[in-house]
Parts: sequence; C-alpha cells; structure tokens
Amino acid sequence: MHKDVQTGDIVEIRTEKGTYKGTIMPKHEFSRDEIIILKLDNGYNIGVSVKDILSLKVLGKGEKAGIRREKMEKGAGEGIKKITLFSTGGTIASYVDYRTGAVHPAISSEDLLFSVPELADFGDMEAKVLFSLLSEDIGPKNWKTMAMEAAKALNSGSAGVIMAHGTDTMGYSAAALSFALKNLTGPVVFVGSQRSSDRPSSDATMNLLSAARVAVSELGEVVVVMHAGTGDDYCHVHRGTRVRKMHTSRRDAFASINSEPIGKATPDGCELRNHRKRREGKVEVFPDFEESVTLLYSYPGLSGEMLEHMLSGIKGLVIAGTGLGHMKSELIPMIGEAVKNGTFVVMTSQCLYGTVDMNVYSSGRELIKAGVIAGGDMLPETAYVKLSWALANLEHEKIPEFMVTEIAGELEERRFL
Amino acid sequence: MHKDVQTGDIVEIRTEKGTYKGTIMPKHEFSRDEIIILKLDNGYNIGVSVKDILSLKVLGKGEKAGIRREKMEKGAGEGIKKITLFSTGGTIASYVDYRTGAVHPAISSEDLLFSVPELADFGDMEAKVLFSLLSEDIGPKNWKTMAMEAAKALNSGSAGVIMAHGTDTMGYSAAALSFALKNLTGPVVFVGSQRSSDRPSSDATMNLLSAARVAVSELGEVVVVMHAGTGDDYCHVHRGTRVRKMHTSRRDAFASINSEPIGKATPDGCELRNHRKRREGKVEVFPDFEESVTLLYSYPGLSGEMLEHMLSGIKGLVIAGTGLGHMKSELIPMIGEAVKNGTFVVMTSQCLYGTVDMNVYSSGRELIKAGVIAGGDMLPETAYVKLSWALANLEHEKIPEFMVTEIAGELEERRFL
Repeated sequence: MHKDVQTGDIVEIRTEKGTYKGTIMPKHEFSRDEIIILKLDNGYNIGVSVKDILSLKVLGKGEKAGIRREKMEKGAGEGIKKITLFSTGGTIASYVDYRTGAVHPAISSEDLLFSVPELADFGDMEAKVLFSLLSEDIGPKNWKTMAMEAAKALNSGSAGVIMAHGTDTMGYSAAALSFALKNLTGPVVFVGSQRSSDRPSSDATMNLLSAARVAVSELGEVVVVMHAGTGDDYCHVHRGTRVRKMHTSRRDAFASINSEPIGKATPDGCELRNHRKRREGKVEVFPDFEESVTLLYSYPGLSGEMLEHMLSGIKGLVIAGTGLGHMKSELIPMIGEAVKNGTFVVMTSQCLYGTVDMNVYSSGRELIKAGVIAGGDMLPETAYVKLSWALANLEHEKIPEFMVTEIAGELEERRFL
Repeated sequence: MHKDVQTGDIVEIRTEKGTYKGTIMPKHEFSRDEIIILKLDNGYNIGVSVKDILSLKVLGKGEKAGIRREKMEKGAGEGIKKITLFSTGGTIASYVDYRTGAVHPAISSEDLLFSVPELADFGDMEAKVLFSLLSEDIGPKNWKTMAMEAAKALNSGSAGVIMAHGTDTMGYSAAALSFALKNLTGPVVFVGSQRSSDRPSSDATMNLLSAARVAVSELGEVVVVMHAGTGDDYCHVHRGTRVRKMHTSRRDAFASINSEPIGKATPDGCELRNHRKRREGKVEVFPDFEESVTLLYSYPGLSGEMLEHMLSGIKGLVIAGTGLGHMKSELIPMIGEAVKNGTFVVMTSQCLYGTVDMNVYSSGRELIKAGVIAGGDMLPETAYVKLSWALANLEHEKIPEFMVTEIAGELEERRFL
C-alpha cells in the first residue's frame, strides 16, 4: 500500500477527520509501520494511521533530499570541505511517539541530514550515529567515545565536527571534550534543540545550520552553538567550559557564565572574538575520566553522617558551596580528613556567577587550611568534569596546581588574587 | 588611657604613620583592647593600635547615637510604630579582625542600630541578638528559633520584623519562615549586605534603611530586601520563596527566579505589587523542620552506589535534575524503590529558570511512574525547605498534594499543565 510514496515526497492525504498536505518524514525504528508521519506546511508533524487514509495523492517528489544523496555519493570534490556530523540523541535527533505523545531519541544523523538538506551547502557531510541517548543518560564513558571519534574525524581530514546532543547535559559533555582534546585542528561544535522538530517553533534547523557555519570557521575550540534570543536572529557561540543550560524550555536557554560568548553565528556567517584558532598537526586525545567523583550541592541540613556517606570510597569531590565558597563549619574537619586520606576536594559556588574567594571569611580560611582547592570562577559542573579528567590523566600531586590553572578558558586566573 | 573617648565620638588620631580623622566604632567581643576602630570619612574602617597613638583629639561627641539612646529609653510613644530588629550574624553584622584581615560575625543588633542611627526615624527600634553565625552555619534549628521569635515579636505589637542575616543562605532561611509562619500580621524582612561596613562600597546602610521602610509597610509576607543594581538607586523586595543569591560578591546578587520582585524600596518609600497584605489577628507559627532531607544535584557520573548512600536513612529527597526534570534512567528503579519504602522524592531543575515538566520525554514519564513529585517552577532550595517543613508538620499521605499546591508564592500552579 502506498508503495510508490517515498520519504521526502510532498503528498495530500485525505482522511475522515480532514485533508492534510505535507512532506513524508523518515520512519524510525520504533514507529509503527501503519503510521505515516507528515510534516505540514505550518511546521508541525502529524502521524496519520494508514488504515484511516481514504486517498493519497503525490504532489511532488522529494528533490532536495535527492540532490543531497547525489552529493553524498560523489564524495568531496576539490576544495570542498568535509564536515563530520555525529548524533548522540536528544531533542535535535528525536521524534514524537504518536502512541504516547512522548519524545524519543531516535533520529539518525542521516535523518538529520535529510531534515535539513541545506547542510550540504557547507561541505561534504559525513554522518555517524554514536548513540541514541537522551542526554541525562550520557556520562563519562560516552565522553570518551565522543572525544575519540571527534579526534579521529579531525585527524582524517574533517574540517570540523558537529556533535548533535541533548541539551540537558550538553554543557557537561562540551566541558569534557574541552579537556580531553588537545591541539585542536578544527572546531568541535555541540548543537541541540530545545523544541523537537515537530513544533513550528523548533530551533533545530537554525541551530544546526549555524553549527555547520562554525564547523568550517577558523575556530580551534570545543563550543556550544545555540539560539541567542527567542527570535531567529542569531546563535551564540559558547565556550564549552563556560556554558550552562539556564532555562528548562526557552530556545535561548544556554548562557556563558562569568564570560562572554566567544561569537555569534547564523547560517550565513559567523563572527568570533577572543577565540583560539585551529592548530597545525594532529589532534591529541586523552579521553579517560575518573568516575569516582561526586558533585555536592551544599545545603543547610547537610549532616556529618550524610557527608560521610558521600565521601566514602570516592577520589574527588566538587562542592557547590554557598556564597564565596563556604560550607557548614562543623563539617570542615571531616573534609580535612578526607583530603589527608587522598581525596581531592574543590570548592565552587552555587551562586554560579562570580568567583570563589575563601580568604574573606573565617570559614573560608578554615577550608583552605583543610586543603580544599579554590575553584575560582569555574562553573561547578566544569570543575566536576575537570577534576574527573585530572584524576584519570595526571600524577596526583600535580592536581592542586592543575585545578587552579587555566587550561581551556574555564577560569580566569587573575580572579584568584 | 583615652577614657574620655566614647563610641560615636569624632576624633583626630596622630600616629607615626599618619593622622586619621573619623568616628570611633563599637568594640567587639573579639577585638583586642589595645585597638581603636575608626570609621574614616571615605567610609573605610581602620584599626589603630593604642600604643601607636601619639595624640588624640576629640573633635565632637557622638550626638546621633545619643539621640537614639534617648529615644530608646523613652519607649514607643503614641502613634510610634515598634520594629523588631533581630541579628543572626553575617556580613551586615560583622567586623574585620584586624589581626588577620578576616571578617567575623560579631556585631550585635545594638551595634547595628548604632552604625545606622537613621533607623530610629522609622519607629521605636527593639534590637535582639539571636545568633552570631555566618549564614553557612544557619540550619533548620535556627529557622525554628527565627520563626518563633518573629511570631513572638509580631504578636507582642511589633509592626514588622527585620532579620539581619548572612547572604549565603538567606534565601533558604527566608523560604523556611515563609512556610513556618501563617496569618502574618506584618512583614518579616530579611536583609544582609554583600560588602562589610568597612568598605566604602558597603550596601549595609541602604539595605537596612530600605528594610525598615518595608517593615512598616502594609506587607504581610516574608521577604528579602537587597540592592537592585550596582548603584544606590533602590532595593528590590523579593518574595522569600523565590529569591536566590546569584552572584558571589555583587551588591545586586539577589534575584527573584521565575517571578518578578514584589516591590521596590528605598529609605524614603516603597512600592509593592502582587503582594499579600497584613492580616488581622495573631501570627501562627509551625516552626519544625525535618532534618533528614537531602538535596541532590544530579550529575553525569552519579552511580547507583552513591545514590544508595544518599538515600540511606532519609525521609525526603529533592533532586535538582537536568532540563525539564530528568536524571539517569538506570537510577529510576532505585528511586522507585525508595518511594515505595516511604521516602518522598521531589524533582526540580538545575537550570533554575523555567519549570519541571516530566510529561515530555520518556525518562520523565518513568520518573512519574516511580512516584516522583514534580516540583513545577520551584527553586531546588525552596522545594528542599518546603519538603523539610511538610515532613515535620503534615500527615504524610498529604505531602504529594501539598508539594504541588502553592502555599507561599513558591510555585505557579498553572505551569504544571
């Protein structure tokens, strides 16, 4: 039934409920066969049960997709850049399950290319699925895979890497790759969307095209490219170690904290500032992360017993303390004991904005005496990732110095003074 | 030596290092006797060792303080409002230890009145020291004392209560009193300062006077009054359940999250909007908080083992999840077990801005099935305080409904839809 209809075709479907005109969307592994997903002109997707279809008329064949496929088959010609697009899951690579209405991470990189055929304008797109995970399920093991794959792509001639990723933990992953990749010969651009592509307000297309623009720029850093405002004016280019998701749903949810974005991008161009440029040579990769690190958000009722639980068997602890970097003074001796026993403890602030300064108040000074490392103006999340990386890659006596040294734009050293 | 010199006197002190003119500041319990603390005209305090003093000339006696003392002794006359000023410690009630340069919480409410004699213009000030704690050391037991004392003051004829408090955990304490006090017959105004009064840029005076202005207003809520900008234009009046310290050091560090401030205040006037007014009758107080509640900031490497540690023996867990309210899906069954065993689990978002919505993605739906309560647009800190209060004051079967019901402006119920 409807065997002559292909993904990308523009069709008119008549059912008892109404007549719909739109483009046939790709099938997903979890889609029921008996459903056709149609992207309407208003941007919405709908699922139409095949058994409800009274008539189906093909209005046009999917040309853009055809052109893209042809380009892909030809391979990169002279002077055409190669861009590698990895998908890891998330809203940008998700579809709505029409049985339940919930969003699943299932679109492949190929589907992404299909949905946004204009990507082919930036160069020869190579697509690869790394995972199909909602980003709350992405952790240190996935950071390792992403780092290795990004290095491999850049070292095999890609001009840049795009990493389509769920927005929930995109900041953590971008920070991870910032520490894992050295001597970047091109940008690694994380991109996501806050609204699934079923919604007319979806930010997926503009974010993806802006990310592609950044991927072929002179940049040599790990960045996040996401909407800068609620309109479609431009995207911000955020440094991977400074970016944080600051809203659950807005399209402009991402913000650079304690630092300006390092650029603006649209599908038509990008402007960079205070950025690091592509290096010559090969990308080096140090992809391991110690998993036995805890991020502790201090709170007024935190008991010694609970802190003891949290410290048991871990190698590193990052505290999101209060204010300038404080915690309950009765707990400081326990922290001091943990440091003596070899646990590395770093202090950051749950205020997020500003910098830790443990020299101002008596409790801060006690923390310094206990051997707690000041995290400066690093985000708690970035300090957590940095410590996880340090524990897996450095001689341990070098860690305190490393944590207060700027490596990938994650802190401003002078703020320590 | 210098026995004729009193606190508040304006003096000129000559030493080998130079000549200083200023006002003698109060002595603190930890001050060395041999040091005189002088507030200079430029706003800075300096400590001068008595043995270094070559000569001391009294230029004027401390009149403002004398006027205040006289007023205090007379008691509240007809039509004069009584305001109760509690001090709990923090920068607003702190002094610099000139031996170490560190800031200690030690100024009493009396000293605060002395430093800002204009407070007497608002009414008859009654001052009481509750604690001398840096606010990182203020917890549920202190919330109880503050709630009981605030209720007692209002029920004994105070028009309003000012609670001078360290800024680090002021948001937590303000949320706590918001739930503990019912039928407020007057405002409970938390106030602090980001810069100690030794610094010319101190915000202490304006914050305190603006707080006094709010304390005699028609308001019947627990609020935080702090600088609104980096200038001295006005303060914001933040609802106690919506306010968060968003910068480690700026004077305008406090922000209302997911809600507008409910007013502006200066020493000369205050403008309120969408606020609740003073009630008739008596304030009721429910001051207990369950301490066995954990605030967990979820992070990518969170292991089942660590979560098990964190869940052991607790009655409540507030998760600051990622995005719309997510956490690693492999941990959801463990959360479900904890809920079955009687632990109440509430989901909030580490994005801070926006609202939890666990109906959008599959992992959110799994959390709902596991019995996790959606925290809506509540701050993680406020949800933590609310759950601690609920566990100590309500029949437990009523807690899930209570957590999603707006009690003190802490959430917007319609956002749940």
